[in-house]
Amino acid sequence: MPVNINLPQGAPVAGIELVTLSAGIKNNGTPDMVVARIAEGSTCAAVFTQSAFCAAPVTVCKQQLHECAGAVRALLINSGNANAGTGEPGIVMARGHCDAVANALSIPSTAVLPFSTGVIGQLLPDDVMLQGIAKATDKLATENTSDLVAWQAAATGIMTTDTVPKLTSQSVEVAGQLVTISGMAKGSGMIQPDMATLLSYVFTDAAIRQDHLEDALREVVSVSFNAITVDSDTSTNDSCVLIATGTSNSDHTLLNPEHAEWPVFMQALRCVFTDLAQAIVRDAEGASKFISVNVDGGKNADECKLVAYAIANSPLVKTAMFASDANVGRLLMAIGKAGVENLDASGVTVMLGDVMAFEAGGIAHGYTEERGATVMACEEIDVFVSLGRGAASATVYTSDLSHDYVSINADYRS
Amino acid sequence: MPVNINLPQGAPVAGIELVTLSAGIKNNGTPDMVVARIAEGSTCAAVFTQSAFCAAPVTVCKQQLHECAGAVRALLINSGNANAGTGEPGIVMARGHCDAVANALSIPSTAVLPFSTGVIGQLLPDDVMLQGIAKATDKLATENTSDLVAWQAAATGIMTTDTVPKLTSQSVEVAGQLVTISGMAKGSGMIQPDMATLLSYVFTDAAIRQDHLEDALREVVSVSFNAITVDSDTSTNDSCVLIATGTSNSDHTLLNPEHAEWPVFMQALRCVFTDLAQAIVRDAEGASKFISVNVDGGKNADECKLVAYAIANSPLVKTAMFASDANVGRLLMAIGKAGVENLDASGVTVMLGDVMAFEAGGIAHGYTEERGATVMACEEIDVFVSLGRGAASATVYTSDLSHDYVSINADYRS
Repeated sequence: MPVNINLPQGAPVAGIELVTLSAGIKNNGTPDMVVARIAEGSTCAAVFTQSAFCAAPVTVCKQQLHECAGAVRALLINSGNANAGTGEPGIVMARGHCDAVANALSIPSTAVLPFSTGVIGQLLPDDVMLQGIAKATDKLATENTSDLVAWQAAATGIMTTDTVPKLTSQSVEVAGQLVTISGMAKGSGMIQPDMATLLSYVFTDAAIRQDHLEDALREVVSVSFNAITVDSDTSTNDSCVLIATGTSNSDHTLLNPEHAEWPVFMQALRCVFTDLAQAIVRDAEGASKFISVNVDGGKNADECKLVAYAIANSPLVKTAMFASDANVGRLLMAIGKAGVENLDASGVTVMLGDVMAFEAGGIAHGYTEERGATVMACEEIDVFVSLGRGAASATVYTSDLSHDYVSINADYRS
Repeated sequence: MPVNINLPQGAPVAGIELVTLSAGIKNNGTPDMVVARIAEGSTCAAVFTQSAFCAAPVTVCKQQLHECAGAVRALLINSGNANAGTGEPGIVMARGHCDAVANALSIPSTAVLPFSTGVIGQLLPDDVMLQGIAKATDKLATENTSDLVAWQAAATGIMTTDTVPKLTSQSVEVAGQLVTISGMAKGSGMIQPDMATLLSYVFTDAAIRQDHLEDALREVVSVSFNAITVDSDTSTNDSCVLIATGTSNSDHTLLNPEHAEWPVFMQALRCVFTDLAQAIVRDAEGASKFISVNVDGGKNADECKLVAYAIANSPLVKTAMFASDANVGRLLMAIGKAGVENLDASGVTVMLGDVMAFEAGGIAHGYTEERGATVMACEEIDVFVSLGRGAASATVYTSDLSHDYVSINADYRS
């Protein structure tokens, strides 16, 4: 059961058409292919996994984006098979699938971005993919591909071990125009995106120049998809795409960072990204708790994130969270091992929710396990660590480590 | 159930007297205090946790070792309470306990090293400790403290979540003298010693100069206690002590690195350390498998260890091991995320036991999941990764991630 996912209902973004179907890549007949057609004139920014074993579609995506200079016209997404660890044959196949989409939609082949998620180390079923692509591109001509139902279907079609689709939306008025930002994401395990993400697609009808869109994406990813962890593991396929169709205004006036209301847009964008990233943690494999680890008082944001991730990834902290055990010792252990140079333990404070647990080098005066346990029994737990040596801060979101986590990952393919 | 612990029976080392008792620090009445008296003229080398939150006894140990210049005469070890996260009061208390041992044994207070293991964040029960120390030092005068039974009792007295005591021994002839090396260790969770260890005490009756003993300890720790992980977590109390009593020969001839048979001694020492370190992994919390991750073909040992630890600490790899799932994809994922710069995936090979699983950028020709599953079904699993870019290598030992791991750590204090 996901922990408190209450995303604002998604709203379609004009200029985006979505088709979802069960192509037969997954064995169980659930939806496993999504094709998105994107309006001409859109801009696109993307970030990808830093894994040395990045999957074939990631390699192809980077090349395509470079060659089409961001003028992306279609996304081809499949779930059930990651096309990772498949070497050159995997790359050739991904290119072939892009060609098939391009031919059917009469767009340049370099304008198609491929994405895959699922089992690693197996070639995609080529025929199944090509038949699916033919069907999907047919449907683009015949079906309603722009309503909320189409968006919800797409959010479902990209799922693997997710238990719920993740789709959200924000609308803001910028320069007298209503701008909509809608995004979807999938991910539940193998989640610690490393300067990148899982699979996530966010669309806006604002008109934004390519370089400004890239800057905006980098900024919001750092506090959303690059601030979560489920199991410290980084996927071979992580990809995050932000597309601006420019359909919000008829004269395609560009929205840019010099605009007075840019911060309003960025706030809404940050909200969509953070909501999606948190939704992944809330739906994490086996999660029964949603934990925010807030670290401040650092010399820089990097050391704050180091401490936050050391806590968020510690199996001993995560099992204590699962057990609602106010085990301050395990938090101290995790802070201690994080590798912050010359950290003075006597300057560190640790709070569980609003309960001060550790200060001045020892357990806080008046702290009792009963007070701590009250906080730990909640589904949403806030841990506050102050390093007492600077003004920087960072927050990382994580889940607990439960019996269900082991069951899900020990039984994944059986 | 521990996985195949078959340590050679321990043998006493002359010059070491051991007393073990139930002082009442643990609630369940099991042994929780060990006092070791060490012959005059012994040398001592030690390494400690690198945690920024190192426990009070670690702080005191480092000061004492420095002040007595390695001329250690007694060890005071308690289990059940780590005296960590206890600030200045914890340090004052640890010093008081050293004074009590020193007074009772008429030795300098700086010659006593204190060690604690157990729950973090609680002050030791001072009276209980002092009463235990009085009893233990009395027993040193009245009981047989030098036979194998005394050694076995001590190995049991330092346990926390361990299910079996870990005591082992090697004897070798060096320069016509029989030299014995015997050691004990405790540890089962919070195990990824960072340039240090858990609690481990190794004694030899060889006569070795302080600086040579330190070099020897550093060398063997790097391939034993610094090559294991259970849960990636580093304790606040890790301590490893190597003591040379010099009682193997009447004329106290010093054994040193220039001696022709030094490598024979080092081989035996390495064996004791590796056996103890592996025993900790074999008795790891919830372990059902013992996994050796061997990485070669690296540019240097550091990058090999980085990859080995990325695999050994991945929750997804560890749950696959638990499930006997030949999930090569998760191994590729872990290698990919390890952070080796400019790693060329096409040069990497992965073997499960003697089964080639991945080569030339793709799943190996002739590899089948059935062949992989045969290897994964064993209690002892060898993973071989070759990075194909150099001649360095490293091995890391780890356990799987099971339901029992979650149970043990979610119920630890309840």
